[in-house]
Amino acid sequence: MGKSILVTGGARSGKSAIAEGLALKLPGRPVYIATAEARDGEMSERILRHRARRGDEWRTVEEPLDLVGVLQATDGDGARLVDCLTLWLSNLMEAGQDPVAEGEALARALAAQRAPVILVTNEVGSGIVPDNALGRAFRDAAGELNQMIARASDDVYLAVSGCPLKVK
Amino acid sequence: MGKSILVTGGARSGKSAIAEGLALKLPGRPVYIATAEARDGEMSERILRHRARRGDEWRTVEEPLDLVGVLQATDGDGARLVDCLTLWLSNLMEAGQDPVAEGEALARALAAQRAPVILVTNEVGSGIVPDNALGRAFRDAAGELNQMIARASDDVYLAVSGCPLKVK
Amino acid sequence: MGKSILVTGGARSGKSAIAEGLALKLPGRPVYIATAEARDGEMSERILRHRARRGDEWRTVEEPLDLVGVLQATDGDGARLVDCLTLWLSNLMEAGQDPVAEGEALARALAAQRAPVILVTNEVGSGIVPDNALGRAFRDAAGELNQMIARASDDVYLAVSGCPLKVK
Repeated sequence: MGKSILVTGGARSGKSAIAEGLALKLPGRPVYIATAEARDGEMSERILRHRARRGDEWRTVEEPLDLVGVLQATDGDGARLVDCLTLWLSNLMEAGQDPVAEGEALARALAAQRAPVILVTNEVGSGIVPDNALGRAFRDAAGELNQMIARASDDVYLAVSGCPLKVK
Repeated sequence: MGKSILVTGGARSGKSAIAEGLALKLPGRPVYIATAEARDGEMSERILRHRARRGDEWRTVEEPLDLVGVLQATDGDGARLVDCLTLWLSNLMEAGQDPVAEGEALARALAAQRAPVILVTNEVGSGIVPDNALGRAFRDAAGELNQMIARASDDVYLAVSGCPLKVK
Repeated sequence: MGKSILVTGGARSGKSAIAEGLALKLPGRPVYIATAEARDGEMSERILRHRARRGDEWRTVEEPLDLVGVLQATDGDGARLVDCLTLWLSNLMEAGQDPVAEGEALARALAAQRAPVILVTNEVGSGIVPDNALGRAFRDAAGELNQMIARASDDVYLAVSGCPLKVK
């Protein structure tokens, strides 16, 4: 059974670089599964910068919603890197899908993979309580999703200033 | 002397479940000390969900302000779980009480307990600086309270995506 | 070569006290390098409180921008404590200087020091995404700077409720 690894951390904490390093140590050509869609200039710039850092060793697949489908379609010999769950959650909520049901389906899919999966997510719940209900609902859903995927993962790392800290 | 354990973490990081697990491993019937008051629908829903998860093994006491009094009144053979200090701080500030004096009194009370106490608190200071003075004052007071209670505790855990990380 | 140590953490997480404790264990009279400028009452009060806690063992230098220069000028036998990088970044951005170039220059300067340097910084990226572009740009720049200085540091600690957690 393929190992699942979750890498969490704050914004610009080095999560993606840590996850990429883990993927490159595994055998096979890694697959980068981007949940981001380039809808504005800020996001396009960020996507291009991430892609330039990765280089040609990677195959890239873009999928904003159907992570379970793309994991099944890419279950070969290389590791899959999902970057990131927080944007996926945001896409799900915008599309009116149920984050809990989708998170549970993803957790089940992880247990069924042959090749490894590394998932990047964000810590969004360590600031003061957001002053709007949507912000509170989003950070609650993100925390629940992180716990759900951490339970389904073999290893969990917290990125702190670029340093990986093993928490599971 | 009863052991004191502090469990901190962001929103929906699994703090309460970790703290409940620790309490249930200790001998005696545990006492759940809720500092939350159900003042709106969002909060009522959250309280009911937490209570349903705990089930009947627990005795529940609700106390928004006088934690020292309730610790003295419940100092029997079961562990006490205080959930959570951040709401207590918010209640204190709203009632015009001095958070530093109350925090020091709580720290002294912990040292005098016979039965163990497990306290849940929140990380609220790892986002960008809040743009209003009240938000800044609250996160500063919350950080000071967390440090004060961590000093008075034997063990301190940080919850990350549901995984407990021992920091003391 | 002087050792470099980075201490990061949220607001009021005990970062400064941990960093001061590390500096006082090292030989020589420590130098406190404050990047804060007292521009309002809230900040003045905070600076005075920090200074009162440190006492007379320390030499204090205030420098909002030229950290490389002040490190060169104070490279004697005592440790230097820079408190903090997040305010320095804020000062750089306000002065129209390039945070990446300045961060790289600081990283190079650290490698050239004879006496040790302890640097305090803040975790600002673990709340929900700020709703304004300036807030997002600041937390991104702060995260990048933290990673850059962590790479140039021998040890990195995360402060959690006053407890130091070694992450490198």
